[in-house]
Amino acid sequence: MNVAYAFQRSKALLTAVELDVFTILAEHPLDLATLTARTRIHRRGARDFFDSLVALGLLHRDPDGRFSNDPECDRYLVRGQPSYLGDLLRHLNARHYQNWSLLTQALMTGAPQRGGIGAGSYPAFYTDAATQDIFLSGMTAGSLMAARALAAKFPWGRYRTFIDIGTAQGCVPVEIARVHEHLRGGGFDLPSVRVAFTDFVRRHGFSDRLQFHAGDFFTDPLPAADVLVMGRILHNWDVATRTMLLEKAYPAVAPGGALVVYDPLLDEERKSAHALLSSLNMLLETPSGAEYTAAECKTWMIQAGFSKVDFCPLGDIHTAVIGMKDAI
Amino acid sequence: MNVAYAFQRSKALLTAVELDVFTILAEHPLDLATLTARTRIHRRGARDFFDSLVALGLLHRDPDGRFSNDPECDRYLVRGQPSYLGDLLRHLNARHYQNWSLLTQALMTGAPQRGGIGAGSYPAFYTDAATQDIFLSGMTAGSLMAARALAAKFPWGRYRTFIDIGTAQGCVPVEIARVHEHLRGGGFDLPSVRVAFTDFVRRHGFSDRLQFHAGDFFTDPLPAADVLVMGRILHNWDVATRTMLLEKAYPAVAPGGALVVYDPLLDEERKSAHALLSSLNMLLETPSGAEYTAAECKTWMIQAGFSKVDFCPLGDIHTAVIGMKDAI
Repeated sequence: MNVAYAFQRSKALLTAVELDVFTILAEHPLDLATLTARTRIHRRGARDFFDSLVALGLLHRDPDGRFSNDPECDRYLVRGQPSYLGDLLRHLNARHYQNWSLLTQALMTGAPQRGGIGAGSYPAFYTDAATQDIFLSGMTAGSLMAARALAAKFPWGRYRTFIDIGTAQGCVPVEIARVHEHLRGGGFDLPSVRVAFTDFVRRHGFSDRLQFHAGDFFTDPLPAADVLVMGRILHNWDVATRTMLLEKAYPAVAPGGALVVYDPLLDEERKSAHALLSSLNMLLETPSGAEYTAAECKTWMIQAGFSKVDFCPLGDIHTAVIGMKDAI
Repeated sequence: MNVAYAFQRSKALLTAVELDVFTILAEHPLDLATLTARTRIHRRGARDFFDSLVALGLLHRDPDGRFSNDPECDRYLVRGQPSYLGDLLRHLNARHYQNWSLLTQALMTGAPQRGGIGAGSYPAFYTDAATQDIFLSGMTAGSLMAARALAAKFPWGRYRTFIDIGTAQGCVPVEIARVHEHLRGGGFDLPSVRVAFTDFVRRHGFSDRLQFHAGDFFTDPLPAADVLVMGRILHNWDVATRTMLLEKAYPAVAPGGALVVYDPLLDEERKSAHALLSSLNMLLETPSGAEYTAAECKTWMIQAGFSKVDFCPLGDIHTAVIGMKDAI
């Protein structure tokens, strides 16, 4: 019953983010009437809604009936905070909650539902500016924790340049550039992403060190650097395409350099619910994507020419697979 | 993140019930290929889907890769079992998961979404036979645990007759009649429910003791009995309607008899997430319904003439409020 009804808990939180409840409560506690007015919701459902968020541990209610954020919500769901992840939840709310209503059909047919993101369909998907915006900022929030872990854990001191392949707004380059002042690099993505990338990088003050490289990894070569990063890219595609991308990355990585791939990898025992459900999400979203294990990725990387492959967890959700290219 | 992504876990379970995975696995464990064939799903998502159900603790996978039900799923989600609750999950899957995608709009407007069930709209809602069928069997599964608790806990030995108001298929009368052979009674509901009730009661072998009473509690008097039951009825309506229904029940209850109301009541401290979310479900489904507390219900019952009011939990979700009518 707990699992059966869990969609209600999810949706209450996703709606709270949509209504920006946590940002509104960031400054000081508010009573029911004020919080209702500030979120512009109707009084009918207001009390039950905010009390639900209290019951879920997302808000607290003091003896005078004033609501305040749980500290975790203060940190991750208040707009403007450095660890704001609300855009990921907005993306789940705007896209994935609905898509998952079609899980049965996706399982029956093996095909993505509601116009999934297929090979060559990102350009079409990106023609609607609002859709692109919520998608790209969702990708940024979804990458933030992995990007910070990658900035902290990878031996960046050995390298001078890096490029993030399929960079979206450039969350990964920004987080790496922030920690490692000696690095220069950038992001590679479709031409239509250029403005989103340059805006985002400028807003974070890294325009002098991070550059946008426009291209399509199906038709163009990849830009060269000491380190290439492919985060949350390979899981969108079938094995043949993953292999093609790794083979395309190999010549672009400088001798002595590395390729970093990360995704919500399946554990070898296939016991992680999040990764398995993420794989079903790829079923719903793509014609042939799926999650995969670190061992599978290692095999593909060795095939592509990398000489040594390491694994490294990047936070709770993602794992990196790091392929080294021999120095000359 | 756990709450944000919980809709995926929900939907995986609801889809598993829709595909009847647990019934298929009830006889003996099956390997991936056989289970995929039996559920008629495409092989692409099959392994990730069944492994997800393992990761969620709903299935088990033995060292040879064969899948079997967790004992709780064997008990509650295998069709034909006496405690089968799958129809509740089918109802959540067919109706509520989708409706909850409109939670934000419901909160903004205070109004039900997608043609909620309003005063006088049950007859219209029931014109589609397939919709009525999944709704009624969902109601049965949703009432089953409360009905059994009511059969076990209420002092039925003191009474001879009872009527369940808004009975749907008659789950409550059947569960009570099963345990208390001396009782005669029946269910009251709209005329279009008659066939569903009489079929269900006959299937369970109680046609000689349980009778259908057709009527509309907005326009007709209620049938008389020692005990009247109103389960999951009052929360559909506003306070004025609840009061009207309780006042209508009072003369129908025999002197010395009782009225039993149950719903997923709010606790006085408003801390139960399930009840609060159930109240938001009433926002999504009805023009003015909501959950309420036992104390509120007691006040309405006393107003309606009942002399003494007791409370009694009926399982994990529902609570009964029992109003006694003085003997002459």
